[in-house]
Amino acid sequence: MAATDRHFGNFDGINPFFPPDFLLLLGSQSPRRKEIVAKMDLPYRIVHIPFDESAAGTSDPVELAQGKNKAFREPLPPHHVLLTADTVVRLGDDILGKPSSIAEAKEMLRRLSGRTHTVETGVCLRDHSRMECFSEMTEIVFKPLAPDEIDYYAENYRPLDKAGAYGIQEWIGLIGIQSLRGDYYNVMGLPAARVWEKLRAWF
Amino acid sequence: MAATDRHFGNFDGINPFFPPDFLLLLGSQSPRRKEIVAKMDLPYRIVHIPFDESAAGTSDPVELAQGKNKAFREPLPPHHVLLTADTVVRLGDDILGKPSSIAEAKEMLRRLSGRTHTVETGVCLRDHSRMECFSEMTEIVFKPLAPDEIDYYAENYRPLDKAGAYGIQEWIGLIGIQSLRGDYYNVMGLPAARVWEKLRAWF
Repeated sequence: MAATDRHFGNFDGINPFFPPDFLLLLGSQSPRRKEIVAKMDLPYRIVHIPFDESAAGTSDPVELAQGKNKAFREPLPPHHVLLTADTVVRLGDDILGKPSSIAEAKEMLRRLSGRTHTVETGVCLRDHSRMECFSEMTEIVFKPLAPDEIDYYAENYRPLDKAGAYGIQEWIGLIGIQSLRGDYYNVMGLPAARVWEKLRAWF
Repeated sequence: MAATDRHFGNFDGINPFFPPDFLLLLGSQSPRRKEIVAKMDLPYRIVHIPFDESAAGTSDPVELAQGKNKAFREPLPPHHVLLTADTVVRLGDDILGKPSSIAEAKEMLRRLSGRTHTVETGVCLRDHSRMECFSEMTEIVFKPLAPDEIDYYAENYRPLDKAGAYGIQEWIGLIGIQSLRGDYYNVMGLPAARVWEKLRAWF
């Protein structure tokens, strides 16, 4: 692999906490997950994994992360770790996926308004010899959102590629979230502290 | 004031929630606070307020925000709101300010390691006719930080301009914070949801 395939965060070298040839293979197209691993100063490369979530027969984020991970067929060199993840938004007994239209996005935000919901991210890590999966939960309390606030967000931002129709790091996450309990980055798509803990224990 | 003095966040126009000539005067040099008001799509301008915190005779963040606010002597046109803020980190009965050296930064991080601390931001808003002040608390739990993690952060990032010697949006905030309770942006320096609520009620 060419050196230019590696990406670093803050610093321009090898992360001193891991073997020199350590590389995180990020099996996700999410720009939020990419931002998180970059901010963790992890050397990473994005890999594309063909995986049809809707055909997986489950909405459990750990099972989906596991299915995605196993669907990567290429051999893993030593010190390369493949990370896959799936994030779901739970409101009561319902799971809120990605909205399919702006109208559905607004309906989801109306349901989240003034209530507490849970964000769960399932993560699987795998190298040439083993695999570990886990999940992390974070609780979010939205203030009662005004109708013009819901309209403004749904029409000026991109709610369609996000479970629950919102991004915590965007406008609505700043003006609308009264409080959070757990790991903020888990809501963005990756429980950074748990991933770090697992990777440090890995080597 | 020239149009170029105004800054907008995501969109290139007037925030539809406020009067067309609304302007937030941000009395803070913190790049984190600037980032937060920009992400809130608030039209803002940074103003410099001469104020000596160490001579204020208090470490209360609301009193400091108030002192800073009153120290701005220029007249405020209608629909211009001056925002000042002060953030403190509390560990037990102690207040952790900005460290004066890398060695002191490491000592602060050793104290925060494996414990729960509180971040309080005091905020004052003032226009030509009235002033409102409030504060917001967020609880943070750091995992036990390894000595090499403390060294890495203190030596590769900029802990000296930050109360408590860390930035939640930086490497150590991702790998080291197990959980948070309250408003994430309050830890960055401004309780975004409370500020939004106050501003919407203002007009």
